[in-house]
Amino acid sequence: MIKSSSLRVRVRYADVDRMSIAYHSRYFEWFEMARTEFMRATGKSYKQLEQMDIFLPVYEAFCKYRKPAVYDELLEIKTSIKDFKPTRIEFYYEVFDENKTLLAIGYTIHPFVNKQLKPVILRGDALGFFK
Amino acid sequence: MIKSSSLRVRVRYADVDRMSIAYHSRYFEWFEMARTEFMRATGKSYKQLEQMDIFLPVYEAFCKYRKPAVYDELLEIKTSIKDFKPTRIEFYYEVFDENKTLLAIGYTIHPFVNKQLKPVILRGDALGFFK
Amino acid sequence: MIKSSSLRVRVRYADVDRMSIAYHSRYFEWFEMARTEFMRATGKSYKQLEQMDIFLPVYEAFCKYRKPAVYDELLEIKTSIKDFKPTRIEFYYEVFDENKTLLAIGYTIHPFVNKQLKPVILRGDALGFFK
Amino acid sequence: MIKSSSLRVRVRYADVDRMSIAYHSRYFEWFEMARTEFMRATGKSYKQLEQMDIFLPVYEAFCKYRKPAVYDELLEIKTSIKDFKPTRIEFYYEVFDENKTLLAIGYTIHPFVNKQLKPVILRGDALGFFK
Repeated sequence: MIKSSSLRVRVRYADVDRMSIAYHSRYFEWFEMARTEFMRATGKSYKQLEQMDIFLPVYEAFCKYRKPAVYDELLEIKTSIKDFKPTRIEFYYEVFDENKTLLAIGYTIHPFVNKQLKPVILRGDALGFFK
Repeated sequence: MIKSSSLRVRVRYADVDRMSIAYHSRYFEWFEMARTEFMRATGKSYKQLEQMDIFLPVYEAFCKYRKPAVYDELLEIKTSIKDFKPTRIEFYYEVFDENKTLLAIGYTIHPFVNKQLKPVILRGDALGFFK
Repeated sequence: MIKSSSLRVRVRYADVDRMSIAYHSRYFEWFEMARTEFMRATGKSYKQLEQMDIFLPVYEAFCKYRKPAVYDELLEIKTSIKDFKPTRIEFYYEVFDENKTLLAIGYTIHPFVNKQLKPVILRGDALGFFK
Repeated sequence: MIKSSSLRVRVRYADVDRMSIAYHSRYFEWFEMARTEFMRATGKSYKQLEQMDIFLPVYEAFCKYRKPAVYDELLEIKTSIKDFKPTRIEFYYEVFDENKTLLAIGYTIHPFVNKQLKPVILRGDALGFFK
């Protein structure tokens, strides 16, 4: 079982504000990209889950910004699973710059629901993480 | 028949880039807000149209930027119909600053389609513009 | 002293995802709009602060999503100050739908810094909250 | 001289709307990513240009959407120079899906200005395209 994955994202012009640093809400978009690639790499893709009528809306989102990410920098987002229950999953993220300096940490919590947003209880290894 | 409508939007921190001016793709989001309010004010809301299985995806989008929009400014977006056929509609937009200076102009063209993205031909006054 | 303020935002097409609910990172943009208007209403505007070389980057951001916000809904964001020290400020947000149902709560923490991102200690009523 | 470059972007959850297709203004963000990588690959990076006090704001932006881009698809954006004068540059973009189907075309026009947004006339090969 792969326990963590890594995604590289370039800080775009569209991402930075007038302080020339990445706008804080962008980190949550990067987290989404990172957990999408994490799931694709470690088990079933999010798209495959949707075809199984399993959705992972965001229930809680948190980010702590330690140092700013600047324009044109190539960031690395490390993703891992912090908690995993039959009813929900918690992802943990670390954002590093090119010098491996930790810029930010964050987490997101996702309940398992169907398309009607009703709770779903996962049995066995539905996400394919343990195959 | 109301021929044009006006929307006010504040240039947010999230909207400006490191040149301290509104990022160019934001104008297309403002155009969407403006035509949504135009439709609500002049006929049927976009949400009502969707309930009638009429969707208006964007087929062409254009914007010409004459002067920059700066942070915290209260802009006015004027919207009007430039062209209207049974198969498609074209909206025209003008963006003004607080001094009524024209900052940008643009247009978007939208075919009428159903949820399966198949063409729909509108009969009579389906959009409610002429009531 | 005004202790809270209220902002209304319409859930736009650009804000919703394929589950037809507002994308979670949008809430942080709404929080930014809400605290900007809070500051404008209760003291000095963020733009005025910047002219005094006082910036409020985001140090921590959190949101808990209780119920989804749907397309075209008119939301109300209530903003208040949860904590205020000479070195930093914490804002608290509540998001309500048109039926006054609480959809989400969140907070953001902002240190006071100058343009070079160095800490600034506020003296007296620099933000104008207590005038 | 390299005449075109290619960028791959994944259609993210944050990019699609309730029709499950990529929101139209995202294409302009992809165009920006694409021309940034084009410039990095063929001459000077945009960041290097800024250090030379040369900025390329967007003066005109256009996109024609032929077929929708769907969630999780890996797109390819091909970028080339359509026109190049001492006072401005025009980029041309083509968006392809994984089957090499052309989804959209677009262009952006950028005048050369300095940080004060005053026109700059480029001499010789300031952008490094012809080295």
